[in-house]
Amino acid sequence: MAKGNVSLSVIRRLPRYHRFLRELSDNGIVRISSGDLSKRMGLTASQIRQDLNCFGGFGQQGYGYNVKDLYDEISKILGLGIPRKTVLIGAGNLGRAVTQHMDFSARGFQLIGMFDTNPSLIGQKIGGVEIYDSSLIGEFCEKHHPAVAILCIPKEAAYELAAVLISHGIKGFWNFSHYDLTIDYDGIAVENVHLGDSLSTLCYRIHELECPNGEQRLNEQPPN
Amino acid sequence: MAKGNVSLSVIRRLPRYHRFLRELSDNGIVRISSGDLSKRMGLTASQIRQDLNCFGGFGQQGYGYNVKDLYDEISKILGLGIPRKTVLIGAGNLGRAVTQHMDFSARGFQLIGMFDTNPSLIGQKIGGVEIYDSSLIGEFCEKHHPAVAILCIPKEAAYELAAVLISHGIKGFWNFSHYDLTIDYDGIAVENVHLGDSLSTLCYRIHELECPNGEQRLNEQPPN
Repeated sequence: MAKGNVSLSVIRRLPRYHRFLRELSDNGIVRISSGDLSKRMGLTASQIRQDLNCFGGFGQQGYGYNVKDLYDEISKILGLGIPRKTVLIGAGNLGRAVTQHMDFSARGFQLIGMFDTNPSLIGQKIGGVEIYDSSLIGEFCEKHHPAVAILCIPKEAAYELAAVLISHGIKGFWNFSHYDLTIDYDGIAVENVHLGDSLSTLCYRIHELECPNGEQRLNEQPPN
Repeated sequence: MAKGNVSLSVIRRLPRYHRFLRELSDNGIVRISSGDLSKRMGLTASQIRQDLNCFGGFGQQGYGYNVKDLYDEISKILGLGIPRKTVLIGAGNLGRAVTQHMDFSARGFQLIGMFDTNPSLIGQKIGGVEIYDSSLIGEFCEKHHPAVAILCIPKEAAYELAAVLISHGIKGFWNFSHYDLTIDYDGIAVENVHLGDSLSTLCYRIHELECPNGEQRLNEQPPN
């Protein structure tokens, strides 16, 4: 199992290993060498060995990795498949798209309710999940005890609702808002998705291609 | 202006500085010390000074940073506001949500067309932008010369269309697909948004809160 002091950059690569291994497995590939995996993933073989060694390493000299075993091991490390009741706050365009686009159950997230302040949305169902009035979130949490909240609301609304959600036992946030929960709260798990920041980073990368000393910096871009 | 060898982690923080500075400016704050900015952003003052020094540093001893000047300087560094014709591929739930949710023009991206293979979507308009048949993308590029493509399509479709788009001069990709363009192409700017990987990372972080040696690793999570 995982050793301590694993860097965030290694953790961030694990879901990608997981994706590639899933594909290999789906294609009937039983085992793979770190060299072959590195070509497919655009990483060096030593990088892959280093990454996986952080978690004890699963490769065998001369054999490589057993695809299914490594996939299962990374699933365990990531904590995938552990059932977690989840609510989504903000059933606007983004919230609805996230609901319809993501396979929550494959990772153990059970979406049990969506919340919005827009009367025209309340009562609707998206993928079989009902949209409730945001004012009922506390009551809902007391009754159903969700552990995870997906925030698809503006910063101000996120700031107000985070306090309520945390007071009702929510410990994990998939945060699409620009409110940085980690500044105000400890002991919660937050994964931010700042689409605006990502788009600005793309701007930088395009600009970098065009500007004189860009090449130097481009090399530092890992295939993320 | 920017010096070479700026690490990706610094670059990734720039859009966040930009966001906070915009808020400060909107709230009529003219200048701010690195200490005050660090409290608001959950970074250390020295971290902020280090980051901004990568680009020459803009602070003045005893004065701090001029909010508007620093905001404008970071805008320049990020290449925001430079007009770039942009197409979006895949007008499904995610593509439509991205179109309706993001302020492209604020960063210089001009969304001039959307593309899909679904006949029921072709001809529709989202936010005034028409959805065309994906088979016409090459023709469209020859005529309008977009520089950026937003990929909201599955991996296989992204693999096929990337070749077409790059052959027609697209040099920047905001990539929501799981196809890693950087493995097959050099000299393009790619910013990946892997929502599935992000959700898996949230899984890990929640799991980490629950598992014994989690605390140790949690400390490495920056407010991203």
